[in-house]
Amino acid sequence: MGESGNAFYAQSGGVTAVINATACGLLETARQNGDRIGKVYAGRNGIIGALSEDLIDTSQESDADIAALRHTPSGAFGSCRYKLKGLEESKAQYARLIEVFKAHNIRYFFYNGGGDSADTCHKVSQLSGRMGFPIQAIHIPKTVDNDLPITDTCPGFGSVAKYIAISTREASYDVRSMARTSTKVFVVEVMGRHAGWIAAAGGLAADNHNDIPVVILFPEIQFNEDAFLSRVKANVEKYEYCTVVVSEGAKWPDGKFLAEQGTRDAFGHAQLGGAAPVVANMIKDALGYKYHWAVADYLQRSARHIASRTDVDQAYALGKAAVEMALAGENAIMPTIVRKSDSPYTWEIGKAALEDVANVEKKMPKSFISKDGFGITDDCRRYLSPLISGEDYPPYENGMPVYVTLKNQVVKKKLKDEFKI
Amino acid sequence: MGESGNAFYAQSGGVTAVINATACGLLETARQNGDRIGKVYAGRNGIIGALSEDLIDTSQESDADIAALRHTPSGAFGSCRYKLKGLEESKAQYARLIEVFKAHNIRYFFYNGGGDSADTCHKVSQLSGRMGFPIQAIHIPKTVDNDLPITDTCPGFGSVAKYIAISTREASYDVRSMARTSTKVFVVEVMGRHAGWIAAAGGLAADNHNDIPVVILFPEIQFNEDAFLSRVKANVEKYEYCTVVVSEGAKWPDGKFLAEQGTRDAFGHAQLGGAAPVVANMIKDALGYKYHWAVADYLQRSARHIASRTDVDQAYALGKAAVEMALAGENAIMPTIVRKSDSPYTWEIGKAALEDVANVEKKMPKSFISKDGFGITDDCRRYLSPLISGEDYPPYENGMPVYVTLKNQVVKKKLKDEFKI
Repeated sequence: MGESGNAFYAQSGGVTAVINATACGLLETARQNGDRIGKVYAGRNGIIGALSEDLIDTSQESDADIAALRHTPSGAFGSCRYKLKGLEESKAQYARLIEVFKAHNIRYFFYNGGGDSADTCHKVSQLSGRMGFPIQAIHIPKTVDNDLPITDTCPGFGSVAKYIAISTREASYDVRSMARTSTKVFVVEVMGRHAGWIAAAGGLAADNHNDIPVVILFPEIQFNEDAFLSRVKANVEKYEYCTVVVSEGAKWPDGKFLAEQGTRDAFGHAQLGGAAPVVANMIKDALGYKYHWAVADYLQRSARHIASRTDVDQAYALGKAAVEMALAGENAIMPTIVRKSDSPYTWEIGKAALEDVANVEKKMPKSFISKDGFGITDDCRRYLSPLISGEDYPPYENGMPVYVTLKNQVVKKKLKDEFKI
Repeated sequence: MGESGNAFYAQSGGVTAVINATACGLLETARQNGDRIGKVYAGRNGIIGALSEDLIDTSQESDADIAALRHTPSGAFGSCRYKLKGLEESKAQYARLIEVFKAHNIRYFFYNGGGDSADTCHKVSQLSGRMGFPIQAIHIPKTVDNDLPITDTCPGFGSVAKYIAISTREASYDVRSMARTSTKVFVVEVMGRHAGWIAAAGGLAADNHNDIPVVILFPEIQFNEDAFLSRVKANVEKYEYCTVVVSEGAKWPDGKFLAEQGTRDAFGHAQLGGAAPVVANMIKDALGYKYHWAVADYLQRSARHIASRTDVDQAYALGKAAVEMALAGENAIMPTIVRKSDSPYTWEIGKAALEDVANVEKKMPKSFISKDGFGITDDCRRYLSPLISGEDYPPYENGMPVYVTLKNQVVKKKLKDEFKI
C-alpha cells in the first residue's frame, strides 16, 4: 500500500447535530498526517458518491471552514439512505467501488453512520480479502437512535436527548402556568421508532429541583389506554397539569403504532398525523382536559444550538480516532466510546470489530423503565445524565448561528462509465 | 395615597420565555424603592388571584430567586385566560377588586399581558375615577403575537422569532443533506393565529450566507394551492429540497383554516392535527415528494434556552419602567419600546395611554410580505433582525438549565366572603 494513499469519507443515514463534528475530527487529523494520507475525498450523498464517482475534494476547503464543521449541524457532504446488499448478490456494485477506489488511489474507507452503514462498511472491509483489493474500512458511529452495540453511546444521541430534556422541562413550566384556566395537558412527540432512548430523555425534565409530572410512552411498553388515562388524571388532580412524552414508536397491544389510529382526511386518505395528536385527543375525549401538542421531528436532531458538549467532544474524538486507527493499520473496526465511570463521567476511546456491530441493535435495558412503564429509573438517569452534560454553543452573528456551507468542489471523474444506482 | 401602599402584580394570557424577566425587573425595582412601595403581592393566576383574594407574598422570596426569574421561562405566579367585562356589566367584580385592594392596602396595579389584559388594566384604571378608589394601573406589554400597538415590539416575540429562525435554518440544513435519496420537503408549523409575525421569522433562516428556499404561508395571504405547489416544485427542482413555514393561522380563500381540512379519525371526530400535516400531505399527493413535518407549539414560546438577549433586556426594562412610572404618579398607561434606529439597533422606553392600546391589534404591514406572498421583504428583515439579536443563556447544572420555582407563599385572607369566578 502506498504510504500516501487517499481516503474516502462519507456520511450515511439520518443526519445529526454533530455528525459534522466527526467529519471535522477526521479531516483535521488527516490534514495533520498529510505525509501519510493524501487527499480525503468525501462521497456526495454517502456511498452513492462512491458508486457514481461523485467525489468531493475536501482539500479545497479552508482550515477555517473545516474547523467550522465542528459547530455545524447536518451532513456537510450530503447523506443517503442506501444499503449495499451482500457481496454475492451485488457483485457489480462492489466491482464498481473497487474501480472507483483504484482510479482515485483510495486506500482508506471511512463510513459514518448507524447500523445499516456499519453493515455496508463491513462489506467494504471484506473487499480486501475476497476481491484482492487493499483497503482499510473503518466505521464511525452516528445515530440519534443510540442503538449501536458495544459503544457506550452514539454521537448524535446526546444532543437530541439534551434538546428533548430541556424542551420538555420548558414546556412543562409553560403548561403549569396556564393550567388553572387553560391548557392542562401538553403532549410532545419524539423520535425513536424502535427504541425509547430519546423518549427516556424526556424523563430528565424532572429532578429533585423540578417536580414535574412527566408520563412517557415507550415503544418497548404495550400501550395500555386505561392505565395511561388514569395516570394523566391523577397527575392533573395532584399538579393541575401533566406532560406526556410519546415516542413515535409507541404501539397498541396489537402492534399497530398509535400514530396509525385510522385517521382519515376528507378524501379518505390514511392518517396525516403523528402519535401526539392521537394521544392528545384521546385525553380530551376521555377526561375533557384542554391540551396542546407538539411534534419535534427534525427540530430535535438538527438543534445544534443546544448540542451536548459531551456529544460534540465524543463525535470529534471518534473522527480523530478513526484516522489514527487507520494509520495504525486497522481494518473492519469501529472506534467506540467506553464509559469508565458515571460520576464524574469519564470515558475513553475503544474499538469494536465490525462483525460484532453490523446488524446488532442495542435495545434499552428493561431496568431503565420504571415498573409502571411510564417513567425512567435511577439506572437510566445515571446512564443518560452525563450524555447531555455541558453546552457547546456555536458562534452567532446578528442573532443567528453561523453554520458553514462547504464549497464541495467535485473531483474530476476518471472513469468513463456512468453507474446507475 | 399612603407613601408605602402595597402593589399588585399579575401575569396574564399565554406565557412566554421572558415574562418572568419582566417580573424580575419589576420586583427588583420595587425592592430598591422599599421606602415608597410596601409589599408586592402577586396574583395567583392573573386577575383571578385578585378576585379570589389568592395573593402571593413576593417578599418571602430571596433576592437570588427573584434574580433567577430573569432566566426562567413561563409565568412564575401562574397566568390565566380571563377577561373582565365592562364596568357597568360586571359591577360585582369591580367592587370585589376594590374590596381586595382595600383590604391589602394595594395602591399600584401592574398587569403583564397582551391585548385582553391591556383592556382589563384599562378598566381597573377607571376604578379610581368612577368608583372613587385611588389606584394606579399600569399595563406591561407581553405577547408572542407581537400585536400590541404603539410599542415597537412586545416582550416574548423576539425570543420566539429567534427560536423559529434558528430552528428553520437548522432543519433546512438537515433536509438539504437528505434530499437526494430521502426527505425533500420539511414543513414546520408556527404560532400566530391572527398575524404572521412569527411565521415571518422563519424567513430569517435564509440570508446572504445561507441560500435556503423557505416558503412561508402567512395568515394574511389567502392560500393559493396551485401557486404554492408550483413554488415548492420549483424549489425542489433547483435546490433538491424545500422548507415550508406554515402559520397555524393560514387560511383557505373561504376563510377556513388549513388545519381544519375536514380530517376525521376512525370514529368520525373532527380533525386532530395542525396545518403542517395537511400541507405536507398536500405536497405528497400532488408532487410525490417525501416529507417530514414538525409542530413547534409550546416549545417555541417556552424556549428560554435560546432567548433573544434584546428581548430579555427589553422585558426586564419594561418591568423596571412600570415601577418607576408608578412612582412618578402615572396611571392608565403602558411603558413601550421605542425604536430609535435599525442598525445599530437602539431603543428607549416610552409610554402609551391605555385607551390607545386596549382592543387595538397591530397587523403586520403589507410591505413586510413579498409580492408573491411567500416570503419576507427587506423592510421586514430590517424590523425583525434586531429583535432576535444577542444570546442570553441561562445557567446550567448537569446539562440542564437551572430554572427557579418560587415558594409562592400565600397571603392570609382578610375577607370573609369567597368570590366565585
